[in-house]
Amino acid sequence: MGTEFPSYAALYAAGIHNHTQAGISGSSKQGADSIVVSGGYQDDQDFGNEIIYTGHGGRDSAGRHVDDQKLERGNLALVVNEIEGLPLRVIRGADQTNPFAPAEGYRYDGLFRVDSHWCDVGKAGFKVWRYRLLKIGDESPTQEDHTPGAPYEGDNAQTHRLTTSVQRIVRDTKQAKMLKWYYRHTCQVCGIRIAVAGAHYIEAAHIRPLGKPHDGPDTTDNIICLCPNHHIMFDLGAFSISDDYALIGIEGKLSVRDGHKINSEHLAYHRERFLSRFESRG
Amino acid sequence: MGTEFPSYAALYAAGIHNHTQAGISGSSKQGADSIVVSGGYQDDQDFGNEIIYTGHGGRDSAGRHVDDQKLERGNLALVVNEIEGLPLRVIRGADQTNPFAPAEGYRYDGLFRVDSHWCDVGKAGFKVWRYRLLKIGDESPTQEDHTPGAPYEGDNAQTHRLTTSVQRIVRDTKQAKMLKWYYRHTCQVCGIRIAVAGAHYIEAAHIRPLGKPHDGPDTTDNIICLCPNHHIMFDLGAFSISDDYALIGIEGKLSVRDGHKINSEHLAYHRERFLSRFESRG
Repeated sequence: MGTEFPSYAALYAAGIHNHTQAGISGSSKQGADSIVVSGGYQDDQDFGNEIIYTGHGGRDSAGRHVDDQKLERGNLALVVNEIEGLPLRVIRGADQTNPFAPAEGYRYDGLFRVDSHWCDVGKAGFKVWRYRLLKIGDESPTQEDHTPGAPYEGDNAQTHRLTTSVQRIVRDTKQAKMLKWYYRHTCQVCGIRIAVAGAHYIEAAHIRPLGKPHDGPDTTDNIICLCPNHHIMFDLGAFSISDDYALIGIEGKLSVRDGHKINSEHLAYHRERFLSRFESRG
Repeated sequence: MGTEFPSYAALYAAGIHNHTQAGISGSSKQGADSIVVSGGYQDDQDFGNEIIYTGHGGRDSAGRHVDDQKLERGNLALVVNEIEGLPLRVIRGADQTNPFAPAEGYRYDGLFRVDSHWCDVGKAGFKVWRYRLLKIGDESPTQEDHTPGAPYEGDNAQTHRLTTSVQRIVRDTKQAKMLKWYYRHTCQVCGIRIAVAGAHYIEAAHIRPLGKPHDGPDTTDNIICLCPNHHIMFDLGAFSISDDYALIGIEGKLSVRDGHKINSEHLAYHRERFLSRFESRG
């Protein structure tokens, strides 16, 4: 596990948690940087790489739940993390009842993402906001009914195949995030702007894909902003883009703002390799 | 690694690869069950948990590339795996030039998913279809600039936060797949049917989520078919569904086919916990 710190003040001094008191460090506009899981909330649940975290508020000075929690400040910040895909640092504080907590002081336990949020009625009978946090890099399919690496027993391949989970992954980076804000979270193909929980959801699509063997760059001249529908269509080759931004495969034209320069070599790369060619199908 | 087999015939007898000769076992309608990576194609690249696999066809009886490969049969089957999210078994055959291949015979190396496909010009100068295969359960963010578990150095938390990759995950199961076919891959909210590469793309959304702490069931009374846009909006609480299927938060009504029974307790669960309540925001 991670590095240990004797106190809240030490966490603050190390730049791990930029708040000297509250459990959530961040703002409702920019999202949260870090949280402290300290066992202070009876509704928290810790499963190691997965944490059900309870928001703040609704408690009196003695720590008793006396009111509903509101979706504001730190609680809203965690929702922004979820929508924008921002990871946050998790620090665990000493808690005798939690096997994943340090024996004393605080410990930095790495980056988690906010998988989902919802409201619930807590053990004390008041409304609480809850968050499912998953450790980044430790995710695997939960529904898998087969151990990878083991031989497949029997011959009902069809059933086996269909009950196994799969993942679709959307990555996000600094350059992608910059461009999302430049386009005000609007799809460059259809103009949709998806409003959720006070923020907006849009995806950054790389024209020439990142990673082997394409090795496209993570630069704004290789990124466009697309809604999830047009992103999946673009990645699967249902449409591509000509040098003058006319769409190929579907009607319309890519909306490109002044100041956003797109590299035409990347457009050609996508057209040549990814655009579905229906005439070649048997 | 996995279990080894002395021959193609032994693979077939064990039900690992249901084809006695071809590298891809499957159909262009149902997708592929398994593939054999045997070093027969000079364009294949093997990185262990990631394989760049070349499709079949375009070769003469001596194995020389003499023509373009077509997106048909096994090649098209792999595209169906990508679109439908179907995993496939990967078997590696002996290949002295590949450090991930067995010394002799064949070895079953677990389940992979088809991440993407594209066409390319192979080393022999003819068109080939290529596939990026990723081992299921071994995926982690590629752009991460920070080692989870290690303390965070310095105080520029903002920069650090924004350059870290995150993942959005969509799971698929047997029940989900059944329902997708029942709705002919059409979104129950907006009616869109996304055509890609001869197939259709739609997502199965669980009303009461799977997994801790919600523990929603993976049964068709807890699943609806949504396009990616409406799926993300539903999961983030931008809309919910009343017992008479009227939408809450956006205009419209959920289209429900005869024979698809939705459990109203799950709808209530989603409404009470996930629907964004703008009035409660600070």
